[in-house]
Amino acid sequence: MFRMFQKRIAHTRRIYLDHAAATPARPEVVAAMMPYLGDVFGNPSAIHSEGRTAKQAVETARASVAKILNIRPEGVIFTSGGTEGNVLAIEGYLAALHESGRSWADMEVVTTAIEHPSVSESLVRLAQRGVNVRTVTVDGDGFISPTALTAVLSYRTVLVTFAYSNSEIGVVQPAHALARAVRAYERAHSGVVIMIHLDAAQAPLWLPCQLPALAVDMLTLDGGKCGGPKGSGVLALRRNVVLVPVLSGGGQERSRRPGTENVPGIVGIAAALVIAQATYKARATRVAEVRDVAIEHLCTTVPGAVLNGPRGSGRVANNINISLPGVDTEYAVVVLDTAGVAASTKSACAGAGGGESVVVQAVTGDAVRARSTIRLTLGEETTVGDFLQVALVLRQHLALMASVEHKN
Amino acid sequence: MFRMFQKRIAHTRRIYLDHAAATPARPEVVAAMMPYLGDVFGNPSAIHSEGRTAKQAVETARASVAKILNIRPEGVIFTSGGTEGNVLAIEGYLAALHESGRSWADMEVVTTAIEHPSVSESLVRLAQRGVNVRTVTVDGDGFISPTALTAVLSYRTVLVTFAYSNSEIGVVQPAHALARAVRAYERAHSGVVIMIHLDAAQAPLWLPCQLPALAVDMLTLDGGKCGGPKGSGVLALRRNVVLVPVLSGGGQERSRRPGTENVPGIVGIAAALVIAQATYKARATRVAEVRDVAIEHLCTTVPGAVLNGPRGSGRVANNINISLPGVDTEYAVVVLDTAGVAASTKSACAGAGGGESVVVQAVTGDAVRARSTIRLTLGEETTVGDFLQVALVLRQHLALMASVEHKN
Repeated sequence: MFRMFQKRIAHTRRIYLDHAAATPARPEVVAAMMPYLGDVFGNPSAIHSEGRTAKQAVETARASVAKILNIRPEGVIFTSGGTEGNVLAIEGYLAALHESGRSWADMEVVTTAIEHPSVSESLVRLAQRGVNVRTVTVDGDGFISPTALTAVLSYRTVLVTFAYSNSEIGVVQPAHALARAVRAYERAHSGVVIMIHLDAAQAPLWLPCQLPALAVDMLTLDGGKCGGPKGSGVLALRRNVVLVPVLSGGGQERSRRPGTENVPGIVGIAAALVIAQATYKARATRVAEVRDVAIEHLCTTVPGAVLNGPRGSGRVANNINISLPGVDTEYAVVVLDTAGVAASTKSACAGAGGGESVVVQAVTGDAVRARSTIRLTLGEETTVGDFLQVALVLRQHLALMASVEHKN
Repeated sequence: MFRMFQKRIAHTRRIYLDHAAATPARPEVVAAMMPYLGDVFGNPSAIHSEGRTAKQAVETARASVAKILNIRPEGVIFTSGGTEGNVLAIEGYLAALHESGRSWADMEVVTTAIEHPSVSESLVRLAQRGVNVRTVTVDGDGFISPTALTAVLSYRTVLVTFAYSNSEIGVVQPAHALARAVRAYERAHSGVVIMIHLDAAQAPLWLPCQLPALAVDMLTLDGGKCGGPKGSGVLALRRNVVLVPVLSGGGQERSRRPGTENVPGIVGIAAALVIAQATYKARATRVAEVRDVAIEHLCTTVPGAVLNGPRGSGRVANNINISLPGVDTEYAVVVLDTAGVAASTKSACAGAGGGESVVVQAVTGDAVRARSTIRLTLGEETTVGDFLQVALVLRQHLALMASVEHKN
């Protein structure tokens, strides 16, 4: 019976709905990288012609990233990916304050309970050193409100860190309004300086990433999530933030990130970010339309399906996250895969397999819902037809499960 | 006059003699990477087909690296490069001991004064926390002797770390003999456990890298220095060494290195290491012959030229480092570049331009010699003819400098 279903729903084209975990690198990005995997292989720190050519590629990439983020080139730090960027921003900034004489216990960081592990685990490490980590409550859709944020700020707060667009439920925080609340608090409390860090790994294809317009100080980007190569990242700084490097070694990246520069990766992420940001608006508008029809279809045709996170413009264009309460969605994801659909239960870094979604648990307070999530993240090529297929597979799977249960 | 010289020595082919700073990626390595920059783009942590295919590529790469290093696959940690590997080994191991309850002040690390910045700077950070860093004296060629090493071990020693092959002067440490001395000390002092870490970033093309034969516990490798891609690295562990990750985040690499795996980079470094190690002996024999003729020619035909580091089998096959006492060798490197030769003064990570070589200063105790180094690191394609050209350019440059000085 199960095999029959599988055959009937066999598809020729794979439907890839896990763009939040990994995007394919764009062919034009790979083409831009190729010379640096080939003939142009010098070490950018070397003073000979091969080195200078490599250096020039890195600095051209830096300038173009700076331009699209509307910051100065000095504010662009190339990293090995989003995790390193988040750790460097959070641990690096607090370590710098500590080195300048501030005790760990005299520092507070404000965050939410729905952050990516690279943020939440960094904060666990800081908490172990004595830093007070305060969690601002998010509402049932995952939003932080300026009022709730202001309520947890204190004269000890040195950093506010949250995801621009949440990797699991797609909630887009009102970064500018939140930043305004922080600035107002700073103005009202002389001597308080609070950095605002955004984990924007999920943002470049869908949302504007200019730091001055967002009014934030630090922004993390990841190449492998926006059409660039894996193993590449950017930590972008608006102000002249002093950071203690996470790695120690040579003086590369203005002594903030030692190690021989990953020249092809740097060229690749720059090319990807330029394309992502140049056309994000049209892309987001188009994909959000598909998303909204898909959410409607899933929630009305799949029994029990309930949406996690907000609807409308407060949700990133390419994210759908539903719960099927009581259903083993890890198994459902395997069934979807067999039927030609790549989906996930939650963030890959949080363990893509079993276990509950910390994010959905925090937002809904509902453990059953948190244990039954399916995340479907769209790409530019995703169609409404893809979701007719997803819904069909899920309905057939649920019917099969129900019939098996009935027989037992 | 200078222009005339330049013209006369103009070469059609570039002579690249900075392989210690960066090697070109082999075409077959890039070919192996290409699918993972293209269609095979899944996140290895995802459970769908795209993810599993990526995961399989990572695990196949891990198995082949483990096989050539003669360790178990669990001992292979993929990193973003040599710097990260060194930092993870050194800071990660001591942080793990600290977490298990040992005070920083109760730990000693033994190293030399001629290490790469990623090692020496990591040790500076540990020293700031209270760790006692002891420096074993090296001889005039840069060698550590087992006797000298034993003399600085103590019941507090937890780690011995040094470069297998020094990146500036090419001295190859007698790793096995040094390890034997450490093991003898351990046996004689009940309860003492000392890890041995080798920075082997310069080794895979020229030296055997099997951890059991070397009798070392941790080994750092860098893709961009052995025919693989930049931004890739391996930290290899023989024993089940507990490490606190340098980055915090997801559970990738058995929770020792979070962040989405750089699949093309991982596939690339594995392919490069397999090729490097499969044929290192014949390669080293051939290149060492060129090196020895070149050293002889440089030291006999370039006025004042003196070799830094040892001669013979104690020197890595592809390294030549000479001093031209009293000469501005940063300028000489620029002149060589103009004449078609890529050379360096020292390690790129130590700042390829001016300033003295910390390594040559430590080995020779001669500041004039340390300020006048030229490092020439060979590749498989390097010929004796290339060094006739290097020597010619240097002689003409020295003659020109002398004539200018004479006129002034």
